Amino acid sequence: ISLTHVTNALVSKGNHRHFMQKEIFEQPVVVSQTLGRYLDPIGTQVTLPKLPFDLKSVTKITLVACGTSYYAASVARYWIEKYARTPVEVDIASEFRYRDPIYAENGLCIFISQSGETADTLAALRHAKEAGQHTAAIVNVTESTMAREADIILPTYAGTEIGVASTKAFTCQLAVLAAFSVAMGVAKGLISSDTEKTLVKELEHLPAQMSTVLATEENIKAIAAEIADARDILFVGRGIHFPIAMEGALKLKEISYIHAEGYAAGELKHGPIALIDENVPVIGIAPSDGLLDKSVSNLQEIMARKGRVVLFSDHLKSLPQADLAGSFSMPSAGDLTSPILYALPVQLLAYYTALEKGTDVDQPRNLAKSVTVE
Amino acid sequence: ISLTHVTNALVSKGNHRHFMQKEIFEQPVVVSQTLGRYLDPIGTQVTLPKLPFDLKSVTKITLVACGTSYYAASVARYWIEKYARTPVEVDIASEFRYRDPIYAENGLCIFISQSGETADTLAALRHAKEAGQHTAAIVNVTESTMAREADIILPTYAGTEIGVASTKAFTCQLAVLAAFSVAMGVAKGLISSDTEKTLVKELEHLPAQMSTVLATEENIKAIAAEIADARDILFVGRGIHFPIAMEGALKLKEISYIHAEGYAAGELKHGPIALIDENVPVIGIAPSDGLLDKSVSNLQEIMARKGRVVLFSDHLKSLPQADLAGSFSMPSAGDLTSPILYALPVQLLAYYTALEKGTDVDQPRNLAKSVTVE
Repeated sequence: ISLTHVTNALVSKGNHRHFMQKEIFEQPVVVSQTLGRYLDPIGTQVTLPKLPFDLKSVTKITLVACGTSYYAASVARYWIEKYARTPVEVDIASEFRYRDPIYAENGLCIFISQSGETADTLAALRHAKEAGQHTAAIVNVTESTMAREADIILPTYAGTEIGVASTKAFTCQLAVLAAFSVAMGVAKGLISSDTEKTLVKELEHLPAQMSTVLATEENIKAIAAEIADARDILFVGRGIHFPIAMEGALKLKEISYIHAEGYAAGELKHGPIALIDENVPVIGIAPSDGLLDKSVSNLQEIMARKGRVVLFSDHLKSLPQADLAGSFSMPSAGDLTSPILYALPVQLLAYYTALEKGTDVDQPRNLAKSVTVE
Repeated sequence: ISLTHVTNALVSKGNHRHFMQKEIFEQPVVVSQTLGRYLDPIGTQVTLPKLPFDLKSVTKITLVACGTSYYAASVARYWIEKYARTPVEVDIASEFRYRDPIYAENGLCIFISQSGETADTLAALRHAKEAGQHTAAIVNVTESTMAREADIILPTYAGTEIGVASTKAFTCQLAVLAAFSVAMGVAKGLISSDTEKTLVKELEHLPAQMSTVLATEENIKAIAAEIADARDILFVGRGIHFPIAMEGALKLKEISYIHAEGYAAGELKHGPIALIDENVPVIGIAPSDGLLDKSVSNLQEIMARKGRVVLFSDHLKSLPQADLAGSFSMPSAGDLTSPILYALPVQLLAYYTALEKGTDVDQPRNLAKSVTVE
């Protein structure tokens, strides 16, 4: 009931020029309302819906999705491995279903889809269910087929998403997956109640931090103007921010039609760096998370080859400002919220770049909102 | 001793214009000599070096590599899962080493590197060894650091590779991994001696099939002329040929500086199809392997959006010839050799496209042959 209410309230563009812009700016609210369902009222514990199986005895997590949801899955892999020390396999739904995958006994397969109707993901869910796996669906539409067929639903409360390029559904998926990862760490006895409390505080702090980032959106406009003429752009990241680099590239592809590609920063020198010249901007996602030095060294290699580097970081002084083509200052955050925060500037960058180019932001060419064919 | 002999004999360009071309054309011979070490003389069994552990009791295979070797690992995942029904994890070395990976008890970690000196891959090997994993190195240089440090070496016999863009080392890595996958299936009791014999025959037949494909290289030149003006190109594949699409894109990036990107065919409609217009050629790798109909349907979606599709297939008539921007006819092959065969036209396409563009094939800008820094 609450969901329907929210849904109706959010269906106009309000003061925003595009649904995508409106949905980007809704994120602090919808992530907050999503987290509200997964954190207890006094803010000390994560809470999941009652499960028909024991999370402690789950031996393996398999995450299956398409497109943007696949990148949410890729982020979650790091969280689950870190907090619950349980092996995680992530796959693209259209690949997974034809692969004759090897299921673990007492494995849990989690399927992620905004609409809950994505054809390949639904087929993968049915495959896993038939094989006797526990199944969970992370969906935004709780009346969807996937929601009906999975053993459990872990809903996102993003409200109706109209923009074809997913934004708020993505960060709400991440919020659910973050809470799930902590819950699984607790169930496995690997997270003490003190640590749980700290992680819950980190999650509770997230919406305010998201608002802070969105409030500096003006700074993205200059970067968008800088890159809008490029035919090709690379996004690079490491570790838990590598999937955010992939998502940033996908957003830009979807709405600006610039050929952007995401790369693990350490892979550049194994081939893609040959592309780099003064015409190919590189967006470096490089928070101070222990991998900063490595990322900076990769970005320096790019700059040495005349690549125009734009840095997104909470530690901008790690590269000389004068040598950068642009930069965006981020707040510092822990591993559980950092990738969610970094999702915002990459969304804004795609949005403002598309505005520069004059493409149709809410209805990009060739794309449908919900992909119900294979 | 034998290796050194081969090495010296192959160090000139012979009648070829570039080392890369020479190395592409050496592949039937070097794959044959590599397979010769992994197949018994009467051609009924695969043979591995004596292992210091029992392959039957290995619970998980982890494959770690960078660049082209990472795509070899990605192909092998399908083989090992199919033939040995053992879970496989594949990761990029620069990501793996910083991920605090979850090792399985009695797991085998295989590290792949032409030079055996790749810094990230070597660091990953040391991490796995310290964690008590069994370790194997697939290297072309048997005097390398990785060869010395791994529990076992599974050498490739590609001879010295001079071209910076790897070709023959890649197909030799695949040959070793194919033999390994069959050996593991046999050890696990999942491959009967009749099936083993059939698979060995398939491998023995491979070098001749490779020669057949290379003999039709003229047909690639017209495709190269067709795509050389493009700024952006997509390669798409499904299943075991998806990594070959990735490798095709990497080769083209490396030596022609065209921004090519590989995609799982089923993912296109989740975003990247927005890029498609008459300026973006799409190379479809679509053998008749049970996924052909799905791939053809994805390619038709691209053609409906004016994308110029080039088809590599053993079943070219699955799309109307008149609607294609180009096509290349492949022999039919089983799962164990098909991805190795499809590696050839994507290498030739990169080579001839680079010739059209006049770039330096053997010494592409910004790249080093062996990456011994992180």
